[in-house]
Amino acid sequence: MQHYLDHAATTPLRPEAREAWLTASEIVGNASSTHGAGQDARRLLEESRERAAAVLGCDPIEVVFTSGGTESINLALQGLWSARPQGTDAIVMPDAEHHATMDTVAALIEAGAVLRAVPVARTAAIDVDAFAASLPGAALATALVANNEAGTVNDAASLARVAAGARVPLHLDAVSALGHLPLSFRALRGEAATGSGLVALSVAGHKIGAPVGIGALVTARTARLTGILRGGAQQRGLRAGTQDVAGAAAFATALELAEAERATESSRLVTMRDRLVDGILSRVPAAELLGDRANRLPGNAHLLFPDAVGESLLFLLDMAGIAASTGSACQAGVAEPSHVVMAMGRSEQDARSVLRFSLGRTSTDADVDAVLDAIAEAYVRASGSGSASRS
Amino acid sequence: MQHYLDHAATTPLRPEAREAWLTASEIVGNASSTHGAGQDARRLLEESRERAAAVLGCDPIEVVFTSGGTESINLALQGLWSARPQGTDAIVMPDAEHHATMDTVAALIEAGAVLRAVPVARTAAIDVDAFAASLPGAALATALVANNEAGTVNDAASLARVAAGARVPLHLDAVSALGHLPLSFRALRGEAATGSGLVALSVAGHKIGAPVGIGALVTARTARLTGILRGGAQQRGLRAGTQDVAGAAAFATALELAEAERATESSRLVTMRDRLVDGILSRVPAAELLGDRANRLPGNAHLLFPDAVGESLLFLLDMAGIAASTGSACQAGVAEPSHVVMAMGRSEQDARSVLRFSLGRTSTDADVDAVLDAIAEAYVRASGSGSASRS
Repeated sequence: MQHYLDHAATTPLRPEAREAWLTASEIVGNASSTHGAGQDARRLLEESRERAAAVLGCDPIEVVFTSGGTESINLALQGLWSARPQGTDAIVMPDAEHHATMDTVAALIEAGAVLRAVPVARTAAIDVDAFAASLPGAALATALVANNEAGTVNDAASLARVAAGARVPLHLDAVSALGHLPLSFRALRGEAATGSGLVALSVAGHKIGAPVGIGALVTARTARLTGILRGGAQQRGLRAGTQDVAGAAAFATALELAEAERATESSRLVTMRDRLVDGILSRVPAAELLGDRANRLPGNAHLLFPDAVGESLLFLLDMAGIAASTGSACQAGVAEPSHVVMAMGRSEQDARSVLRFSLGRTSTDADVDAVLDAIAEAYVRASGSGSASRS
Repeated sequence: MQHYLDHAATTPLRPEAREAWLTASEIVGNASSTHGAGQDARRLLEESRERAAAVLGCDPIEVVFTSGGTESINLALQGLWSARPQGTDAIVMPDAEHHATMDTVAALIEAGAVLRAVPVARTAAIDVDAFAASLPGAALATALVANNEAGTVNDAASLARVAAGARVPLHLDAVSALGHLPLSFRALRGEAATGSGLVALSVAGHKIGAPVGIGALVTARTARLTGILRGGAQQRGLRAGTQDVAGAAAFATALELAEAERATESSRLVTMRDRLVDGILSRVPAAELLGDRANRLPGNAHLLFPDAVGESLLFLLDMAGIAASTGSACQAGVAEPSHVVMAMGRSEQDARSVLRFSLGRTSTDADVDAVLDAIAEAYVRASGSGSASRS
């Protein structure tokens, strides 16, 4: 039996989202076509946009559907950069962002951008004062709402406020926060001036039980942004291409369900997560919980196992039917040390010795029990101390 | 009852593709994760890539899955442009390309590219000699395998051969040709030198009964190409983002079915299409078939209705339960004259007086009958001649 503790990488498809996808996929018609079949598709698409907007706290026209989180982040960062005011060339980015942000910013640096890096605390929390101090005159700023590896929740409201004060456009990556934290684009944006403050927020469907392949960038009406996929006037000209009506309908359905159950589900996950963390720490006294004990995503447990190789731990747990992660799944195929853990002030060796367990909608006490049953032996086998004690 | 004659805009989802999507969506796991669940997803993804490659006549590693045709075209054109050799700045583009190509090239022109436009014949066929003459020293070239509006089939083999001869990288847009014409990337590419000749070919799933939201760019191993979506090493670094395993499985299934039935389906569609065209021409003697009578996509009927407004015809047919198009669906919401029809040497008025009927897998004789029953009266009502005869 498989114990899936990697909900931060991707989540099981919700049955209701599957049904919404199937129903929508019965409509034959391109949402850009003017005939009746096209207009049926168009109606469902716009209804889905309205439902998504209601959950995300924005106007429907501010929802730009994309193929997922990576595209949303690329659209925000490349799009803001392309439309930046003349004379600005700095990008404000904290040190522990997701690779989609880091790699996009790296490409923009090749194109002439200047990086203003913002340090994070030992918990991975973004230092708001340092962030604010980096803002004046910047072309754009970006930040995670919650760190996808460490689970640490940032003070998004303050980040948005200081960006608005500095009149710098801010992108928030809410991919890992979606469904777990209250998120209102309108409330976070506040009374920011045209084109500044929070202007763009990235979300992805498959993190909350919608299919892979659908996501959105929430973009303020007044955002100055250029599209990266050209070819049609769809979605305010920001995202050309035949619109994925079935994906949008499934995403809207998943958003509503995730929001409806968020409060009860959060406390359920926190209880299970705390039992998981406490159980691991008591079975592996050398282990250490990373990030902030309280101020973290409900389902996230990010732990350092000193002297163990994370990939070995992962393999041993996998043999016991347990799916976890060493960090961001997007990089998991490549055995690199986690840049997030290093940004938290840890050594490269520590950055290779972490595991992330992430609980979600389908998680049960049995999943926690399975980890607690397996972790001590796995640690002994994967760590130098284990070899030593057996030698 | 709805008569859907707009298969060029989008096609009904094949039941087998729906089943493949549903089966794949039961797998919980990010294909980039190293645990068992992730590897199950990875296996299905790579098996789907192999199946797609077998149909498209390429190696599996050459299949880069994207969110659809528009992204594939953007990736090819922006990607080749970004990686172009120093000192080359020309882009060779025929006059009757799809908007995804035209708009992407327009953005590259803003970024410093110089357009070498290639005229098309009155049939919309690309002039191979003019294309060849434009190639020397160009950064890249692009061309449609078959025109999405006029249905005219280009001589893709010759276009690829002259590009290889000129050592210029060529992108072919095969979105409208997929499933209707024989397509082998390997055969078209031939023995072209590294980085030149046919290096990229765009296809989209929803044109052949796969879901919207999945497509591919076939890219030669030796293509010099930069990705446009950053954030991970997935797919040779050319396309970051969590991979859509269910979409890929559904696309592979649709590709195999479309290829298996291509020969019989083509002749079935040609018979129906010819009856449609002949029937319209006999009922509306003023009408004219555009494009090449023989050398066209099997299901395509592209007709000029002089002095009628295409949008009005579309509306009147829609009232009779018939779905057709004035041209590319991507622009159909905007009542612009067709640039394709104007590139074919027609007036702007003519370019507003065309209809495209496109037949496909689910088309029946009853669909053809419905058009033939409705077209004469629709033409009378939509054209000035009709108003005149009634006054």
